[in-house]
Amino acid sequence: MNAHRIIGKDIPRADGRAKATGQAIYADDIKLPGMLYGKLLRSPLPHARILAIDTRKAAALPGVHCVITGQDIPRVTYGNWRLFPGTQDEYALAVDKVRFIGDEVAAVAAVDRETAEAALEAITVEYEELPGSFDVAASLADGAPVIHEASPTNISIDRKIAYGDIEAGFAASDYVREDTFTVHAVSHAYMEPCACVAQSDLDGRITLWTSTQTPYIVQCLLASTLKMRENDIRVIKPTVGGGFGGKMELRPWEFCAAFMARRTGRPVKFTLTREEELAYGRRRHPMTVRSRVGFKSDGTLVAKDLHIYLDGGAYNAMGPTATFLSGNFGAMLYRYPNYRYLGEHVYTNKPPASAMRGFGAPQTLFAAETQMNMAAEELGIDPIAIRLKNAMVSGDELPGVATISSCGFIESLKEVRRISGWSRKRKGLKTGRGVGIGCYSFISGGVFNWFNTQYPFSAAEVRAFDDGTVHLLTMASDIGQGSDTVLKQILAETLGLTMADIRLTAADTAMTPQADLGTWGSRVTLMAGNAVLDAAQKIKERLAGAVSARFDLNVIFDIEFADGRVFAAGKPDRGMTFGEAVAFVQKTQRGEPLVARGSYTPRGKGLVSPAFSFGAQVAEVAVDTDTGQIQVEKMWTAHDCGTVLNPMSVEGQLEGSVHMGLGYALSEQFVMEGGKTLNANFLDYKIPNAADMPPGESVCIETFEPEGPMGAKEAGEGLVSPTAPAIAEAVFHATGYRCRDLPITPEKVLKGIGKL
Amino acid sequence: MNAHRIIGKDIPRADGRAKATGQAIYADDIKLPGMLYGKLLRSPLPHARILAIDTRKAAALPGVHCVITGQDIPRVTYGNWRLFPGTQDEYALAVDKVRFIGDEVAAVAAVDRETAEAALEAITVEYEELPGSFDVAASLADGAPVIHEASPTNISIDRKIAYGDIEAGFAASDYVREDTFTVHAVSHAYMEPCACVAQSDLDGRITLWTSTQTPYIVQCLLASTLKMRENDIRVIKPTVGGGFGGKMELRPWEFCAAFMARRTGRPVKFTLTREEELAYGRRRHPMTVRSRVGFKSDGTLVAKDLHIYLDGGAYNAMGPTATFLSGNFGAMLYRYPNYRYLGEHVYTNKPPASAMRGFGAPQTLFAAETQMNMAAEELGIDPIAIRLKNAMVSGDELPGVATISSCGFIESLKEVRRISGWSRKRKGLKTGRGVGIGCYSFISGGVFNWFNTQYPFSAAEVRAFDDGTVHLLTMASDIGQGSDTVLKQILAETLGLTMADIRLTAADTAMTPQADLGTWGSRVTLMAGNAVLDAAQKIKERLAGAVSARFDLNVIFDIEFADGRVFAAGKPDRGMTFGEAVAFVQKTQRGEPLVARGSYTPRGKGLVSPAFSFGAQVAEVAVDTDTGQIQVEKMWTAHDCGTVLNPMSVEGQLEGSVHMGLGYALSEQFVMEGGKTLNANFLDYKIPNAADMPPGESVCIETFEPEGPMGAKEAGEGLVSPTAPAIAEAVFHATGYRCRDLPITPEKVLKGIGKL
Repeated sequence: MNAHRIIGKDIPRADGRAKATGQAIYADDIKLPGMLYGKLLRSPLPHARILAIDTRKAAALPGVHCVITGQDIPRVTYGNWRLFPGTQDEYALAVDKVRFIGDEVAAVAAVDRETAEAALEAITVEYEELPGSFDVAASLADGAPVIHEASPTNISIDRKIAYGDIEAGFAASDYVREDTFTVHAVSHAYMEPCACVAQSDLDGRITLWTSTQTPYIVQCLLASTLKMRENDIRVIKPTVGGGFGGKMELRPWEFCAAFMARRTGRPVKFTLTREEELAYGRRRHPMTVRSRVGFKSDGTLVAKDLHIYLDGGAYNAMGPTATFLSGNFGAMLYRYPNYRYLGEHVYTNKPPASAMRGFGAPQTLFAAETQMNMAAEELGIDPIAIRLKNAMVSGDELPGVATISSCGFIESLKEVRRISGWSRKRKGLKTGRGVGIGCYSFISGGVFNWFNTQYPFSAAEVRAFDDGTVHLLTMASDIGQGSDTVLKQILAETLGLTMADIRLTAADTAMTPQADLGTWGSRVTLMAGNAVLDAAQKIKERLAGAVSARFDLNVIFDIEFADGRVFAAGKPDRGMTFGEAVAFVQKTQRGEPLVARGSYTPRGKGLVSPAFSFGAQVAEVAVDTDTGQIQVEKMWTAHDCGTVLNPMSVEGQLEGSVHMGLGYALSEQFVMEGGKTLNANFLDYKIPNAADMPPGESVCIETFEPEGPMGAKEAGEGLVSPTAPAIAEAVFHATGYRCRDLPITPEKVLKGIGKL
Repeated sequence: MNAHRIIGKDIPRADGRAKATGQAIYADDIKLPGMLYGKLLRSPLPHARILAIDTRKAAALPGVHCVITGQDIPRVTYGNWRLFPGTQDEYALAVDKVRFIGDEVAAVAAVDRETAEAALEAITVEYEELPGSFDVAASLADGAPVIHEASPTNISIDRKIAYGDIEAGFAASDYVREDTFTVHAVSHAYMEPCACVAQSDLDGRITLWTSTQTPYIVQCLLASTLKMRENDIRVIKPTVGGGFGGKMELRPWEFCAAFMARRTGRPVKFTLTREEELAYGRRRHPMTVRSRVGFKSDGTLVAKDLHIYLDGGAYNAMGPTATFLSGNFGAMLYRYPNYRYLGEHVYTNKPPASAMRGFGAPQTLFAAETQMNMAAEELGIDPIAIRLKNAMVSGDELPGVATISSCGFIESLKEVRRISGWSRKRKGLKTGRGVGIGCYSFISGGVFNWFNTQYPFSAAEVRAFDDGTVHLLTMASDIGQGSDTVLKQILAETLGLTMADIRLTAADTAMTPQADLGTWGSRVTLMAGNAVLDAAQKIKERLAGAVSARFDLNVIFDIEFADGRVFAAGKPDRGMTFGEAVAFVQKTQRGEPLVARGSYTPRGKGLVSPAFSFGAQVAEVAVDTDTGQIQVEKMWTAHDCGTVLNPMSVEGQLEGSVHMGLGYALSEQFVMEGGKTLNANFLDYKIPNAADMPPGESVCIETFEPEGPMGAKEAGEGLVSPTAPAIAEAVFHATGYRCRDLPITPEKVLKGIGKL
């Protein structure tokens, strides 16, 4: 299998040096002549009717070039679920009503930030305050305030999954348990706050540089909200400092920058502050997860009935996807012969929740994995043993939803048991120390076309030159996860070239090939990778033809691509350099350059994903039973991401996932009162720091994913899910305290062990 | 013929507003973080050996980041005639010898221009002065200094053309005359001096923004001189403020910017001063033209023997092309059954001459047209009548060299005779006033592949979108002549769209399709236009298929493209919008975008050009016989540029040509002494100003050029040639003074009429 020269090797990130030396250009680094600075006026109330806005004083301030409100802009709502326009519930600037503290009410553009801020102060808004609802229960209560007229129940979307016979399943169960778990909101906390610069040319076309995961989505939604044509808008992704799902929608500042650039004829920049990001930004959905599960007495799963309320905040955002995916993740990892899911997305007067790394999985799997641990405990079965009994294997199906192709879950469970010394530690640990397990499965990109793109899901163009270089053009968006590097690896490997032979241009909607749905759901490696492979194969066919013609080879000869050469397999002298072969092809087509386009769209892959990753993680904790403080001592991970394309990159993803999982499990949360966020800064919003990171050990269980490029699948997102349930179980093992509501704070631990 | 909606209309320049409002970005407008400013140290001597260069003091100056000499760079010569490497005689920085005053000896990069200039002062160069040669005669004299070792005769290139039997021709002639004409050097005097910015990325790849007519040529030659791979270099043409042939080669500052950017890791900018441009820049070739012509007594041409010495200055530059083309232009306009040409390119110790608008034609045609007027005079035939008798017509051939396809020369002669009131004025004018005629023919791009490109001569990519827009990508370079506009017109017309429907990206070697030989020889409209048409036709075929399928049309139906719709001819209801048709095609190919590449390479078109323009111009002058001052009272022009794609643009070209022709005829010249230019500024180098411009009247003789896009051919360059001979003949008609050596100064007039 492994004659790979570049795939499977520790290739440093293509963007690493530029970032380390400060040469990388982020959106906020862009400065254009005559550029204005934009600022947003936000609602101070969680729910209110806008009676009047007076912008005259602001507009009259020297240095203020533009002030706009919801009255100035086209009345076009937007939202990512373009396939169902009814879900598109957001205006770039509030019209009639505000629905959360921070809802965007007006925008200004001025010669500098200070003037823009002064202009915000000079705007007066008259509100009629309305009663607010700040959690799911309040929104669902009788007489609850209606947040959107179109959703009188405050439930904006529900999604269902069902297969088998749920009633029969429970009837056949020996042991049934029902639990409710609640999980909280956390911030993406990407290092780079959102920023963009819009420029309008003299024909009225817009160029928008924006910190986004989804240039194509921004392009399309900006077009519809501006009532422009899609291709009169060009979206360019500069270097992006993280996204984690928080930068995959059109956002008000992007709209306002473009709108005001057209109106003023000047470029307009917006850069959000960390406070804005934390207080008003997108976040992971809080959920209330009610799960009823039936087992045979030997631990065999028989049925699962799952009901989840998602606290969506004020708008749908990516909530519809989270609502569906939570139901899928609830059905993963184990074989549930009978399964039923109902997800309901509920509006509240809080900042909208949306996509965030894991996309429904961290919440659902915290519940599912914790419940599995609870069942194991009650049934007297080892937590890993009960998982092995029920673990999904290759070929398993969620009827009508998904088929599992490659699956290294059982191997992951066994391997993490081995490397963590699980069996010994589960027995031998004394009070105050414990080990626990959590597992995950995740998607490698989505199948369901909620954005209703008319293009392939991913596309690539490869241009091969007679100097031995190639140019790879793709609209895939590297936001720090390393996809540029891995796409170059795939191409270099396939064509027998080096990384240095490849120039990459990515994520420019006017220049790179249509289209790509963006970076989310761990889709890039698989989908853009397949598109690159497709294009590369077409190039290879032509070059193989060149060598066959030049050396008059029998058609059955295999042609190899290695070390910058193209040659007959086993006869290296019958070949030429890559560049010579390109030149030969160019001659055969009278000078036309050798260019190929490739694409990928998943077909016949159910509703969810073409491929699923799997893994298991063991946490060891020490709990100070006097303070309730939890110290994570070590994390062991075994996971199946198919072929490991770049071990260093996978390791980085794992470390980042553990870091995020740690914060999710133990320390991160929004402190809110009446819809107001009280801890909108990094002092009070507690992200683990480097010193908090436990040592780790990990093993990649290599499988070969037939749908993935070179056998690869997701490696960057699923791993964020097992950490919280593993730690929760370890805390239970150490203390007897069972957490059902994240985060696991010292206070809860002390209460749980009766010390508070 | 003319159901055109966009072709043939006065469409304003695409770049007009940006230039008028100051928003256009020229190379010198580009500022990058950390950018250094480059300056060149030039030779103060016309011919010298470099014994030693000491750069240590310069390099030690605070703020100086880099100082380089010919010792630091790869020993690779360059030149545009890549097909014959022996012609490539230039180093970016002098090695061993300098050959003209201004020859580049060293380059510095510093934090600002002042520091860079101070560094130049601090460099000491020890020269051994060599004897210089400053004209052709001196270079050809016995014992002349040898300027390049490889050319001991100082003749670097000769080119020959011959057909018929020259001796027999003269033997059969009733009237033979031999004359020698000398023409001088003039400056392109583009408004924007040369400028460039080079940036090196962390992989060592270069991006060069440069004021060039030929991004592809610069890319390739920069690669060879830097010993890099072509596609590790990206050349981007920003807005260019004129070129006229003076920006079509790799130049030392481009090399030095790139070399020093790599060495320092910082961007490096060079911007030439006007003084540098005038004193050291490229210029039109001075020539000595000896022409022997034989006629029958009725004025019928029988034979021509042409010998031209080109004064090439210190290097070949585009001299090889001028050497050949002069021989072609000498054979044009009239039927010479027996023709012989010898062109010799001679080195002198002056700034290199090179391509300049007309590319050999202004010089050759001044001689040929003046000689024709002299013959008419002696034979007692009206100058227009003798031309009509000998005029080329469609289908004429220069055996083995070129075939004339469309030709509106006779119509041009008749029309200019009519509109100028020629017959009356030739008789009725009194002393001191006169009318004269000059004619031209010109190429529409070159055929001979001197750059040895492996790509099509021009290429285009068209991407069509379901929003009714298209994106046109081409490496064609608009340098102010309006080619972006005309390419958009061709595309809009072909697809039935408006100008606003088209986004254009041009002249970026990494992004726009390989390749395009650049802007020279009036090649862009024909060649890039044909490439655009080729791509557009492929798009049309697909869209016509969409309509045929959707409406189940008989295959013989013609499909029309108009007003943003695609429909069955004569049945407008059986059709859809352009965008709907694109969407349909995209559906048929499962989402793949509708993209087509087109290209054009002339084949079977001889050695010179696929098409030739023709025209005739009459000048009326008033000569003050006391001062010798010539006032051009009016210019009449009738010319054949095939289909007129954009009348406003053609008119602009005509006006610019008359302006340049006027300067060439009357006022522009370099005053030089011992190789030193004494008038290197716009006060002393006298370009006509707006008040000097005569009124004009013009008629386009429309022909249909079968090889041209929509029947079009050259309109911007040939017209620079007839003005000087027309004025010279008018001066003769007014005064009896016959000028054989441009420019026609008052001093020469007074001497000519015996008043000095």
